[in-house]
Amino acid sequence: MIEGVTLHDLRQINVPKGDVFHALKSTDIGYSGFGEAYFSHIESGSVKGWKRHNQFVMNIIVPIGEIKFVIFDDRKNSVTFGKFEEHILSPIENYKRLTIQPGLWVAFQGLDKGVSILLDIIPEPHSKNEADSKPLESINYIFK
Amino acid sequence: MIEGVTLHDLRQINVPKGDVFHALKSTDIGYSGFGEAYFSHIESGSVKGWKRHNQFVMNIIVPIGEIKFVIFDDRKNSVTFGKFEEHILSPIENYKRLTIQPGLWVAFQGLDKGVSILLDIIPEPHSKNEADSKPLESINYIFK
Repeated sequence: MIEGVTLHDLRQINVPKGDVFHALKSTDIGYSGFGEAYFSHIESGSVKGWKRHNQFVMNIIVPIGEIKFVIFDDRKNSVTFGKFEEHILSPIENYKRLTIQPGLWVAFQGLDKGVSILLDIIPEPHSKNEADSKPLESINYIFK
Repeated sequence: MIEGVTLHDLRQINVPKGDVFHALKSTDIGYSGFGEAYFSHIESGSVKGWKRHNQFVMNIIVPIGEIKFVIFDDRKNSVTFGKFEEHILSPIENYKRLTIQPGLWVAFQGLDKGVSILLDIIPEPHSKNEADSKPLESINYIFK
Protein backbone atom coordinates (compact mmCIF):
# COMPACT_ATOMS: atom_id res chain seq x y z
CA MET A 1 0.00 0.00 0.00
CA ILE A 2 1.04 3.59 -0.54
CA GLU A 3 2.71 5.06 2.52
CA GLY A 4 0.06 7.22 4.18
CA VAL A 5 -3.00 5.21 3.09
CA THR A 6 -4.78 2.90 5.51
CA LEU A 7 -8.05 1.02 5.40
CA HIS A 8 -10.05 0.29 8.56
CA ASP A 9 -12.84 -2.19 9.21
CA LEU A 10 -16.20 -0.71 10.20
CA ARG A 11 -19.03 -2.44 11.99
CA GLN A 12 -22.55 -2.72 10.65
CA ILE A 13 -24.85 -3.50 13.55
CA ASN A 14 -28.05 -5.30 12.75
CA VAL A 15 -30.90 -3.52 14.50
CA PRO A 16 -34.66 -4.05 14.08
CA LYS A 17 -36.24 -1.22 12.02
CA GLY A 18 -32.89 -0.21 10.50
CA ASP A 19 -29.21 -1.03 10.95
CA VAL A 20 -26.54 1.13 12.54
CA PHE A 21 -23.38 1.70 10.52
CA HIS A 22 -20.28 2.91 12.30
CA ALA A 23 -18.29 5.70 10.66
CA LEU A 24 -15.57 7.21 12.87
CA LYS A 25 -14.70 7.45 16.56
CA SER A 26 -12.24 9.83 18.16
CA THR A 27 -10.45 6.78 19.55
CA ASP A 28 -9.94 5.18 16.10
CA ILE A 29 -6.59 4.81 14.38
CA GLY A 30 -6.44 7.46 11.67
CA TYR A 31 -8.59 9.99 13.50
CA SER A 32 -6.81 13.33 13.39
CA GLY A 33 -9.26 15.79 14.92
CA PHE A 34 -12.61 17.17 13.86
CA GLY A 35 -12.98 20.30 11.79
CA GLU A 36 -15.71 19.40 9.34
CA ALA A 37 -17.89 16.57 8.13
CA TYR A 38 -19.38 16.88 4.64
CA PHE A 39 -20.98 14.70 1.99
CA SER A 40 -19.82 14.56 -1.60
CA HIS A 41 -22.12 13.09 -4.23
CA ILE A 42 -20.73 11.44 -7.32
CA GLU A 43 -22.87 10.63 -10.33
CA SER A 44 -22.76 7.27 -12.04
CA GLY A 45 -19.58 6.96 -14.11
CA SER A 46 -18.37 10.48 -13.29
CA VAL A 47 -14.91 11.10 -11.88
CA LYS A 48 -13.93 13.91 -9.50
CA GLY A 49 -10.23 14.71 -9.21
CA TRP A 50 -7.38 15.09 -8.99
CA LYS A 51 -7.20 16.77 -5.63
CA ARG A 52 -4.43 16.87 -3.07
CA HIS A 53 -4.82 17.99 0.52
CA ASN A 54 -1.60 19.50 1.78
CA GLN A 55 -2.42 19.55 5.49
CA PHE A 56 -5.62 17.59 6.12
CA VAL A 57 -6.00 13.90 6.75
CA MET A 58 -9.14 12.58 5.04
CA ASN A 59 -11.33 9.93 6.66
CA ILE A 60 -13.73 8.66 4.01
CA ILE A 61 -16.77 6.39 4.37
CA VAL A 62 -19.24 5.41 1.63
CA PRO A 63 -22.74 5.01 3.12
CA ILE A 64 -24.58 4.91 -0.24
CA GLY A 65 -23.70 3.45 -3.63
CA GLU A 66 -20.24 2.36 -4.69
CA ILE A 67 -17.19 4.53 -5.25
CA LYS A 68 -13.76 3.73 -6.67
CA PHE A 69 -10.92 5.73 -5.16
CA VAL A 70 -7.58 6.08 -6.90
CA ILE A 71 -4.62 7.45 -4.98
CA PHE A 72 -1.39 8.54 -6.66
CA ASP A 73 1.89 9.17 -4.90
CA ASP A 74 4.18 11.73 -6.56
CA ARG A 75 6.11 12.61 -3.40
CA LYS A 76 9.75 12.55 -4.48
CA ASN A 77 11.08 11.11 -1.22
CA SER A 78 8.35 8.54 -0.71
CA VAL A 79 9.13 4.83 -0.71
CA THR A 80 5.97 4.40 -2.78
CA PHE A 81 6.79 7.21 -5.26
CA GLY A 82 5.04 6.76 -8.63
CA LYS A 83 2.58 4.14 -7.31
CA PHE A 84 -1.18 4.06 -7.79
CA GLU A 85 -3.57 2.43 -5.36
CA GLU A 86 -7.24 1.61 -5.90
CA HIS A 87 -10.02 0.92 -3.40
CA ILE A 88 -13.68 0.28 -4.14
CA LEU A 89 -15.88 1.11 -1.15
CA SER A 90 -19.57 0.49 -0.64
CA PRO A 91 -21.91 -0.25 2.25
CA ILE A 92 -22.69 -3.67 0.74
CA GLU A 93 -19.43 -5.18 -0.50
CA ASN A 94 -16.64 -3.38 1.31
CA TYR A 95 -17.79 -1.15 4.15
CA LYS A 96 -14.52 0.33 5.39
CA ARG A 97 -13.01 3.67 6.32
CA LEU A 98 -10.28 4.95 4.03
CA THR A 99 -7.71 7.19 5.73
CA ILE A 100 -5.49 9.26 3.46
CA GLN A 101 -2.64 11.36 4.79
CA PRO A 102 -1.96 14.77 3.21
CA GLY A 103 0.29 15.06 0.17
CA LEU A 104 -1.32 12.36 -1.98
CA TRP A 105 -3.41 12.88 -5.12
CA VAL A 106 -6.93 11.45 -4.98
CA ALA A 107 -9.63 10.95 -7.61
CA PHE A 108 -12.87 9.02 -7.30
CA GLN A 109 -15.53 7.59 -9.59
CA GLY A 110 -19.18 6.72 -9.01
CA LEU A 111 -19.69 3.04 -9.85
CA ASP A 112 -23.33 2.66 -8.82
CA LYS A 113 -26.25 3.03 -11.25
CA GLY A 114 -27.51 5.94 -9.15
CA VAL A 115 -25.70 8.67 -7.27
CA SER A 116 -23.13 7.47 -4.74
CA ILE A 117 -22.26 9.44 -1.61
CA LEU A 118 -19.14 9.69 0.51
CA LEU A 119 -18.77 11.18 3.97
CA ASP A 120 -15.43 12.88 4.55
CA ILE A 121 -14.24 14.02 7.96
CA ILE A 122 -11.34 16.48 7.99
CA PRO A 123 -9.44 17.99 10.95
CA GLU A 124 -10.24 21.64 10.17
CA PRO A 125 -13.07 23.39 8.34
CA HIS A 126 -12.63 23.30 4.57
CA SER A 127 -10.20 25.87 3.20
CA LYS A 128 -9.55 26.42 -0.50
CA ASN A 129 -5.91 27.33 0.03
CA GLU A 130 -5.10 24.09 1.77
CA ALA A 131 -5.74 21.86 -1.27
CA ASP A 132 -4.46 21.66 -4.84
CA SER A 133 -6.34 20.45 -7.88
CA LYS A 134 -5.33 19.41 -11.34
CA PRO A 135 -7.15 18.06 -14.38
CA LEU A 136 -7.91 14.36 -14.64
CA GLU A 137 -5.82 13.96 -17.79
CA SER A 138 -2.72 15.40 -16.11
CA ILE A 139 -2.05 12.09 -14.32
CA ASN A 140 -1.62 8.97 -16.40
CA TYR A 141 -4.48 6.84 -15.10
CA ILE A 142 -7.37 5.66 -17.23
CA PHE A 143 -10.82 5.53 -15.63
CA LYS A 144 -13.02 3.11 -17.54
CA MET B 1 -39.51 25.43 20.18
CA ILE B 2 -38.52 23.15 23.03
CA GLU B 3 -35.69 24.58 25.08
CA GLY B 4 -32.56 22.73 23.97
CA VAL B 5 -33.62 22.07 20.38
CA THR B 6 -32.21 24.11 17.50
CA LEU B 7 -32.35 23.80 13.75
CA HIS B 8 -29.53 25.06 11.53
CA ASP B 9 -29.43 25.78 7.83
CA LEU B 10 -27.01 23.70 5.79
CA ARG B 11 -25.58 24.50 2.38
CA GLN B 12 -25.91 22.29 -0.66
CA ILE B 13 -23.24 23.29 -3.14
CA ASN B 14 -23.95 22.59 -6.76
CA VAL B 15 -20.86 20.95 -8.27
CA PRO B 16 -20.47 19.30 -11.69
CA LYS B 17 -20.43 15.46 -11.38
CA GLY B 18 -22.12 15.55 -7.95
CA ASP B 19 -23.10 18.11 -5.34
CA VAL B 20 -21.43 18.76 -2.00
CA PHE B 21 -23.69 18.77 1.06
CA HIS B 22 -22.44 20.39 4.23
CA ALA B 23 -23.01 18.52 7.50
CA LEU B 24 -21.15 19.99 10.50
CA LYS B 25 -18.18 22.23 11.17
CA SER B 26 -16.34 22.64 14.47
CA THR B 27 -17.11 26.36 14.24
CA ASP B 28 -20.89 25.83 13.96
CA ILE B 29 -23.41 26.75 16.64
CA GLY B 30 -24.46 23.53 18.34
CA TYR B 31 -21.14 21.76 17.82
CA SER B 32 -20.10 20.24 21.13
CA GLY B 33 -17.01 18.19 20.35
CA PHE B 34 -16.34 15.06 18.35
CA GLY B 35 -16.49 11.60 19.85
CA GLU B 36 -18.25 9.59 17.17
CA ALA B 37 -20.04 9.83 13.86
CA TYR B 38 -22.42 7.00 12.94
CA PHE B 39 -25.26 6.31 10.53
CA SER B 40 -28.64 5.00 11.58
CA HIS B 41 -30.93 3.48 8.98
CA ILE B 42 -34.69 3.60 9.39
CA GLU B 43 -37.02 1.51 7.30
CA SER B 44 -40.10 2.95 5.63
CA GLY B 45 -42.82 3.58 8.23
CA SER B 46 -40.77 2.17 11.12
CA VAL B 47 -40.21 4.17 14.30
CA LYS B 48 -37.13 3.99 16.54
CA GLY B 49 -37.53 5.38 20.04
CA TRP B 50 -37.89 6.58 22.61
CA LYS B 51 -34.30 7.34 23.55
CA ARG B 52 -32.83 9.97 25.81
CA HIS B 53 -29.19 10.98 25.93
CA ASN B 54 -28.26 12.15 29.39
CA GLN B 55 -24.91 13.75 28.57
CA PHE B 56 -24.48 13.91 24.79
CA VAL B 57 -25.61 16.62 22.43
CA MET B 58 -26.84 15.10 19.15
CA ASN B 59 -26.18 16.76 15.81
CA ILE B 60 -28.35 15.05 13.23
CA ILE B 61 -28.34 15.35 9.43
CA VAL B 62 -30.45 13.36 6.95
CA PRO B 63 -28.47 12.78 3.72
CA ILE B 64 -30.84 10.12 2.31
CA GLY B 65 -34.62 9.73 2.38
CA GLU B 66 -36.94 11.55 4.73
CA ILE B 67 -37.19 11.21 8.51
CA LYS B 68 -39.66 12.63 11.00
CA PHE B 69 -38.19 13.42 14.40
CA VAL B 70 -40.37 13.83 17.47
CA ILE B 71 -38.89 15.35 20.61
CA PHE B 72 -40.63 15.22 23.98
CA ASP B 73 -39.73 17.32 26.99
CA ASP B 74 -40.50 15.75 30.37
CA ARG B 75 -37.93 17.78 32.34
CA LYS B 76 -39.81 18.98 35.39
CA ASN B 77 -38.15 22.37 35.58
CA SER B 78 -38.23 23.12 31.87
CA VAL B 79 -40.21 26.06 30.50
CA THR B 80 -41.31 23.72 27.71
CA PHE B 81 -42.26 20.81 30.03
CA GLY B 82 -44.84 18.48 28.48
CA LYS B 83 -44.33 19.80 24.93
CA PHE B 84 -43.76 17.80 21.76
CA GLU B 85 -41.88 19.10 18.77
CA GLU B 86 -41.74 17.62 15.27
CA HIS B 87 -39.25 18.12 12.46
CA ILE B 88 -39.20 16.42 9.09
CA LEU B 89 -35.73 16.43 7.55
CA SER B 90 -34.61 15.36 4.10
CA PRO B 91 -31.92 16.33 1.60
CA ILE B 92 -34.63 17.49 -0.84
CA GLU B 93 -37.25 19.42 1.12
CA ASN B 94 -35.62 20.49 4.36
CA TYR B 95 -31.87 19.97 4.47
CA LYS B 96 -30.98 21.17 7.95
CA ARG B 97 -29.01 20.09 11.00
CA LEU B 98 -31.03 19.27 14.09
CA THR B 99 -29.22 19.87 17.39
CA ILE B 100 -30.72 18.27 20.49
CA GLN B 101 -29.34 18.91 23.95
CA PRO B 102 -29.23 16.02 26.46
CA GLY B 103 -32.25 15.27 28.64
CA LEU B 104 -34.91 15.17 25.91
CA TRP B 105 -36.74 12.10 24.59
CA VAL B 106 -36.36 11.49 20.85
CA ALA B 107 -38.10 9.12 18.44
CA PHE B 108 -37.90 9.06 14.66
CA GLN B 109 -39.81 7.53 11.77
CA GLY B 110 -38.77 6.70 8.21
CA LEU B 111 -41.10 8.54 5.81
CA ASP B 112 -39.45 7.61 2.52
CA LYS B 113 -40.53 4.64 0.40
CA GLY B 114 -37.06 3.16 0.82
CA VAL B 115 -34.64 3.17 3.73
CA SER B 116 -33.77 6.60 5.11
CA ILE B 117 -30.44 7.36 6.75
CA LEU B 118 -29.38 9.83 9.41
CA LEU B 119 -25.86 10.87 10.37
CA ASP B 120 -25.46 11.61 14.06
CA ILE B 121 -22.36 13.25 15.54
CA ILE B 122 -21.93 12.95 19.30
CA PRO B 123 -19.23 14.42 21.57
CA GLU B 124 -17.93 11.10 22.93
CA PRO B 125 -17.88 7.56 21.59
CA HIS B 126 -21.19 5.78 22.09
CA SER B 127 -21.75 4.42 25.59
CA LYS B 128 -24.75 2.34 26.61
CA ASN B 129 -24.85 3.73 30.13
CA GLU B 130 -25.17 7.30 28.96
CA ALA B 131 -28.60 6.89 27.35
CA ASP B 132 -32.04 5.70 28.48
CA SER B 133 -34.66 3.99 26.39
CA LYS B 134 -38.34 3.30 26.82
CA PRO B 135 -41.05 1.71 24.69
CA LEU B 136 -42.84 3.76 22.04
CA GLU B 137 -46.20 3.34 23.74
CA SER B 138 -44.93 4.75 27.05
CA ILE B 139 -45.19 8.31 25.71
CA ASN B 140 -48.53 9.54 24.48
CA TYR B 141 -47.69 10.36 20.86
CA ILE B 142 -49.29 8.61 17.88
CA PHE B 143 -47.08 7.93 14.86
CA LYS B 144 -49.28 7.48 11.79
